[in-house]
Amino acid sequence: MTRKEDVEAALMRLRPVVDDALSDVVRGSPPEQLADASEHLIEAGGKRLRPVILLLAAEAVADRHVDPGGTEETGLLPEISNDPESYRAFPAADGSRVDVLTAAACIEVVHTFSLIHDDILDDDNVRRGVPAVHRQYGDDMAILAGDKLFARSFELLLETGASPDNSVPALGMLARTCVKLCEGEGLDISFEERESVSVPEYLQMVDLKTGVLFAATASIPAVLLGHREAVDPLAGYGREVGRAFQIKDDLLDLTASTEALGKQRGSDLVEGKQTIVTAHAREQGVDIDNLVESDTVESVTEAEIDDAVEQLESAGSIAYAREMARDCVERGKRHISSLPEKRPRRLLTDVAEHLVEREY
Amino acid sequence: MTRKEDVEAALMRLRPVVDDALSDVVRGSPPEQLADASEHLIEAGGKRLRPVILLLAAEAVADRHVDPGGTEETGLLPEISNDPESYRAFPAADGSRVDVLTAAACIEVVHTFSLIHDDILDDDNVRRGVPAVHRQYGDDMAILAGDKLFARSFELLLETGASPDNSVPALGMLARTCVKLCEGEGLDISFEERESVSVPEYLQMVDLKTGVLFAATASIPAVLLGHREAVDPLAGYGREVGRAFQIKDDLLDLTASTEALGKQRGSDLVEGKQTIVTAHAREQGVDIDNLVESDTVESVTEAEIDDAVEQLESAGSIAYAREMARDCVERGKRHISSLPEKRPRRLLTDVAEHLVEREY
Repeated sequence: MTRKEDVEAALMRLRPVVDDALSDVVRGSPPEQLADASEHLIEAGGKRLRPVILLLAAEAVADRHVDPGGTEETGLLPEISNDPESYRAFPAADGSRVDVLTAAACIEVVHTFSLIHDDILDDDNVRRGVPAVHRQYGDDMAILAGDKLFARSFELLLETGASPDNSVPALGMLARTCVKLCEGEGLDISFEERESVSVPEYLQMVDLKTGVLFAATASIPAVLLGHREAVDPLAGYGREVGRAFQIKDDLLDLTASTEALGKQRGSDLVEGKQTIVTAHAREQGVDIDNLVESDTVESVTEAEIDDAVEQLESAGSIAYAREMARDCVERGKRHISSLPEKRPRRLLTDVAEHLVEREY
Repeated sequence: MTRKEDVEAALMRLRPVVDDALSDVVRGSPPEQLADASEHLIEAGGKRLRPVILLLAAEAVADRHVDPGGTEETGLLPEISNDPESYRAFPAADGSRVDVLTAAACIEVVHTFSLIHDDILDDDNVRRGVPAVHRQYGDDMAILAGDKLFARSFELLLETGASPDNSVPALGMLARTCVKLCEGEGLDISFEERESVSVPEYLQMVDLKTGVLFAATASIPAVLLGHREAVDPLAGYGREVGRAFQIKDDLLDLTASTEALGKQRGSDLVEGKQTIVTAHAREQGVDIDNLVESDTVESVTEAEIDDAVEQLESAGSIAYAREMARDCVERGKRHISSLPEKRPRRLLTDVAEHLVEREY
């Protein structure tokens, strides 16, 4: 099994575990329409990238046995990962057991809350292949559904069975993260009213909107399990991986096919969205605002996009973004180099690689 | 000093203490517009009823000394209340110190979050004498401002200095409360689409929208201070007081003057809002939907409202609501009868009385 196959196998194995946990936690109390609106995006699926990273990070810090039936060499996951239920009673540093699967669900619920509200703010119609919550249920119900998931996420993080001494800093991390998510989205909105945004400003927004949640995702298991020494390395890993993830998203809008994206290639350009690529290109003197003439995704042609991408390539902006994403991954890997050298750490490394190499 | 004067004096003394604490906690990080939108309603003032109840509940459970310069007999507040800073280091059961003023700020921040989002949902224009946040800053910024305050409230409850053993259940109570606030607002929205709502359904909505936050308000100090025996009594007190508060609000819309209300008397009737009075009247066969002919608050006349109120009085609905509010207060008082019989308990009782006797 190659390392790429290995990480893909891990993702394939963990996603359904996360899906199951999520379907348990969001089953709603009345009123019915609010319950439906709250479950809508969670049931629509998604990559479950954050919860999977959380589970891998838990494995990376845990003191644990290797499955007698599967060792490092055979490429099988060690014992604990072969039984999804074992994530419900994951060994903490003090010998107690913590339900890290519920922590993973918490993070996906927070992420979903922010998607629901962001889709209202950005006036987006489709999310995870289904209508955005506000399109399906109206703005009012979408605001409430986001709020309910937000509150649920704190309930979930209190249900892991971790000791109060470890739960309190984990909750603090979650609360701080949510404040920053809001500030990041606020910054993003303010960018829309501005003609230009510099690369550092753009990266600050990415750190707030994406980096902090990835940082919390990767480090919360270490907090809950009482492995204090691993918290900062994993938070550093998460922050860099989150940044790389967003930069890669910006790149894919230009380089992936319309088919693979599930939406018009170049739509960020058409809609005048700030990205790392446009921020760099503007600094190189490219006239970003007139890069494509069409101003709707319906009217733009592939040829127009090709031409725009060519100009961005000539300005070195695509290579610049690619290199930055790679640098983030390298820094992320270095952050966790102090963790025990075992398979889960390698999987975290490989997930980071996977994120910048993905084609959609 | 009469008991009424005493409770008014306590409210007058505690409100500025709460105002000061709030101005410290909401001072915002960038982006600026989001910070401004988040502070807008908090700076607009308000009765600060919830935080004041929280501080009184803290006093009611605390083991404490009486100010040598002021005793029960003189009607002066005991020592700890004469110095606002003492709320920052309030004595807990285990001898440690807890910042109950920050907990009080937390509750007001949660309340403000829910006002901001509810005003969007209810399309209300004015709140606390200033434009609603969404009117001043737009819907998008109002959604985000509510979210940010929501997250801030959890941060605040983590900053009280209470032991992790006491902070964790307090956070659980806050998270559960927020889930229920959303469900209550969801129920309220669903009522708008229905022709009739029964008294029990209406009361369930009130419990979720108002009762649970008052219950958390009154009992969180007991949780944080480690007085477990006082948690249920104070939660019961808060729930009943919250219910009485909402019923009184419904009544005031009909009985207070337009001038005292700061909005058209009878506007709930004109707007077809469900209230305890209309729910009861409908069950008595009153044709609620045609009680007033005008369908805007601009066109309705005082005579029309007088006539409607007379019909509601004939149906016994106003007396019914009055009696129910009084019953809630009595039940609320009984809930805390097990607490030490001292001045703070009496103030909690008097605050409850004050709420149903207020004229606006």
